[in-house]
Amino acid sequence: MRFTHEVTSDNEHERQRAYFEPFTDAVRDLLDVTIRTEMDEDVIREAQAAIEAVTARLRTRQIDGAYGVRLNADGRSRSWGNPVIGLRNPIAPPLVITRDEQDRCSADFELGAAYEGPPGHVHGGMSALVLDHILGEAASSGLRKPNFTGTITCRYVRATPLGRLRAEAFVDRVEGVKTFARGFIADADGVTVEAEGVFITPAWAREAG
Amino acid sequence: MRFTHEVTSDNEHERQRAYFEPFTDAVRDLLDVTIRTEMDEDVIREAQAAIEAVTARLRTRQIDGAYGVRLNADGRSRSWGNPVIGLRNPIAPPLVITRDEQDRCSADFELGAAYEGPPGHVHGGMSALVLDHILGEAASSGLRKPNFTGTITCRYVRATPLGRLRAEAFVDRVEGVKTFARGFIADADGVTVEAEGVFITPAWAREAG
Repeated sequence: MRFTHEVTSDNEHERQRAYFEPFTDAVRDLLDVTIRTEMDEDVIREAQAAIEAVTARLRTRQIDGAYGVRLNADGRSRSWGNPVIGLRNPIAPPLVITRDEQDRCSADFELGAAYEGPPGHVHGGMSALVLDHILGEAASSGLRKPNFTGTITCRYVRATPLGRLRAEAFVDRVEGVKTFARGFIADADGVTVEAEGVFITPAWAREAG
Repeated sequence: MRFTHEVTSDNEHERQRAYFEPFTDAVRDLLDVTIRTEMDEDVIREAQAAIEAVTARLRTRQIDGAYGVRLNADGRSRSWGNPVIGLRNPIAPPLVITRDEQDRCSADFELGAAYEGPPGHVHGGMSALVLDHILGEAASSGLRKPNFTGTITCRYVRATPLGRLRAEAFVDRVEGVKTFARGFIADADGVTVEAEGVFITPAWAREAG
């Protein structure tokens, strides 16, 4: 599938954020009620027609393929299409990841009906998705080179309830091209899922720096 | 978070499927264009207002909390809210998992812009989400007891391109309350991610059968 490569100025970035962020939040809200509504067939069919009309309008001008790489003028990549942190991806909760002085990454977030596996609890694979992302973020931290997941292991300590959660990740050690990261998801009562991952620096990034 | 427990007759199940399936497909399509549209601010703001109106209407009558457990009259559970296979969850591609005579599970599916991690490729955590689900399905197969993920390990052989993919999973062996399952995701050129998981039969299910 094709993807886009584009550089955007800081001003343009903020201008687009101002309308794409609330728009995407509205689609997230629709996504939640798509699962939870108990309205009758006629209302659902009308809703479908209204949504199809919106989609057709928005498709009048769209990028060819997936979101791809977008860079801001300062060189930072803009991951608006990402399914974990993407400002423009309604699948993403989205996680807002912060990094402390020791390069430890953390995020407080909330998972609702759209992320349910066992009744009232987070789908185990959704926890894996979140952990894969935040461990990768820790492994690629700061001035370090880009890293791609080699392996990741998740240990489910107990079922993770839907609601407010926290994820954390940090680099355990670096051995050559391998970065070992660890992390967890926790609710108010403590850790529910632990993870460790091995992230690999790709050959094309090994020479630089 | 609360969740629902409900039993539905076969007729009612099929009646609801007939309108919820195309409605959810329409929301999936909107989700894709939410990431890809290049329309200007005024169009995005109009789209937002239209979607908020649809959402408000659908929220007039909705279940309290997540989708929970719904059973059909034949006792099979209906996972319409599930983020991997859910007919009513726009996050789900959705996977349609089939099972052969040897209890091997497989699914052909397509992942587009909403599942992108590295440019043009599937987010590693999305592969983990799919694999966690299909390995769990294999581990809980047929007449076997329900199982919950204990640990899962994913090995990324190479980047998985967006587009048409296949997932397979099977039970490797059973040792007491532990079921060991294995599986993979593949594109047309072969395996891209391998996984193995240990699934545990919960105490409440160990006595029955």
